[in-house]
Amino acid sequence: MRLFPEPAARLAVKDVYRDVSFPKQRERPYVLINMVSSLDGKAAVEGKAGSIGGPADRAVMRNLRALTDAVMIGAGTLRAEKLSLAVPENLAQTREAHGLDPQPLAILVTETGDVPLQTNLLGLLPDNLLILASPETPQARLTALSSYASVEVVLDLNSALEALKGRYGVDVLLVEGGPALNHALVRNGLVDELFLTLAPKLLGGERPKALTILEGPSLSHQQSPKPELISVHLFGDELFLRYAL
Amino acid sequence: MRLFPEPAARLAVKDVYRDVSFPKQRERPYVLINMVSSLDGKAAVEGKAGSIGGPADRAVMRNLRALTDAVMIGAGTLRAEKLSLAVPENLAQTREAHGLDPQPLAILVTETGDVPLQTNLLGLLPDNLLILASPETPQARLTALSSYASVEVVLDLNSALEALKGRYGVDVLLVEGGPALNHALVRNGLVDELFLTLAPKLLGGERPKALTILEGPSLSHQQSPKPELISVHLFGDELFLRYAL
Repeated sequence: MRLFPEPAARLAVKDVYRDVSFPKQRERPYVLINMVSSLDGKAAVEGKAGSIGGPADRAVMRNLRALTDAVMIGAGTLRAEKLSLAVPENLAQTREAHGLDPQPLAILVTETGDVPLQTNLLGLLPDNLLILASPETPQARLTALSSYASVEVVLDLNSALEALKGRYGVDVLLVEGGPALNHALVRNGLVDELFLTLAPKLLGGERPKALTILEGPSLSHQQSPKPELISVHLFGDELFLRYAL
Repeated sequence: MRLFPEPAARLAVKDVYRDVSFPKQRERPYVLINMVSSLDGKAAVEGKAGSIGGPADRAVMRNLRALTDAVMIGAGTLRAEKLSLAVPENLAQTREAHGLDPQPLAILVTETGDVPLQTNLLGLLPDNLLILASPETPQARLTALSSYASVEVVLDLNSALEALKGRYGVDVLLVEGGPALNHALVRNGLVDELFLTLAPKLLGGERPKALTILEGPSLSHQQSPKPELISVHLFGDELFLRYAL
């Protein structure tokens, strides 16, 4: 059910955000963050986010992936749990209708180069995978990673996003965490929208095992965005919130 | 605007939760927690919650106070900032209509006995104030506090709530944090409802300065409640969520 904008409307989970389109920007991709959090602000338990959201959250996550050129995560998120960055077959038509390739480009951001591709990345073809490394990444690891994926060494997130736009044609980028990557993007004013699933749970837990959706220093007044609510959907007791930053 | 239950209805902030009534329980008060959090789960910045919510949040907080026999906070919350636990004059009629005393009983929970009543508690009469101390509280501090307020030494939160019901006639108790007190109450299954204001902000920040609404160890499956959404209100970009635990 969509609660906002009113009037409320019933719809299937598979149709949430179906008709959304995102503007193109000149210098960098239009950047979305999608995260799930408990009512007490926990986005990871024992370092893992996988168990916080329910089936509707996973369906909405796939809907968003179906609308984007690329899906990006931090390497820490991949180290924490096995996951896939792919879009399932049944959303191929949606991508085609939006003029997108069958699968989004999968992007992993790493400084250390410790990226357990073979053990933790499920179901992805290597020709669809890009590693964004830093000048700090050890050369031996860059070499090892480049046998599985394209590797780009970028100075910072700004130049990473410029490269994604300019060299990889990424107009819309979906970021799925982790909290340190989210924080770095928000702090640098690089995020356009936040999709937040509020799971009806109280989890407790403390750092470093329990994390919020943003982990890093307090944002200054200038760094701190002023989110505006775009829409609210409700499935079961899970709320799906969309904000423009 | 109330978004849920549908259909949506427009109403003034002063009327939010106005017609809510809470059931009476035999052994202990019916316990509500009211907290405000940013989108990234931060309920305190630099230890203080005061700046997170907007005017609508403060109005809704007062509406809830107007419906309850007693308002409880942890002493750490009082140490962090100056605050009042009182209900303003214009809500006196609401309290009278609900058969309540003009002001709720103000309750401070402390283990150390470090409760800066004179410097940080604004606008409250001493005859309306109760300190819940523990067997660990130093005797000298108990003596000092008892010249300003009633003091009860209680073994644990269970017996504290039984005493509030049995000796102080508290049928409905509103808890306004801090996160450690919230955690202890939830962990012991003593909370009936959660009122959560979701402020449209991304704040960042790390412990101990930035806190979530629950601070404490990960809750076990048995301790972790299954919140059910009762209502959703929206004022500006602030969401007001009510859950039954």
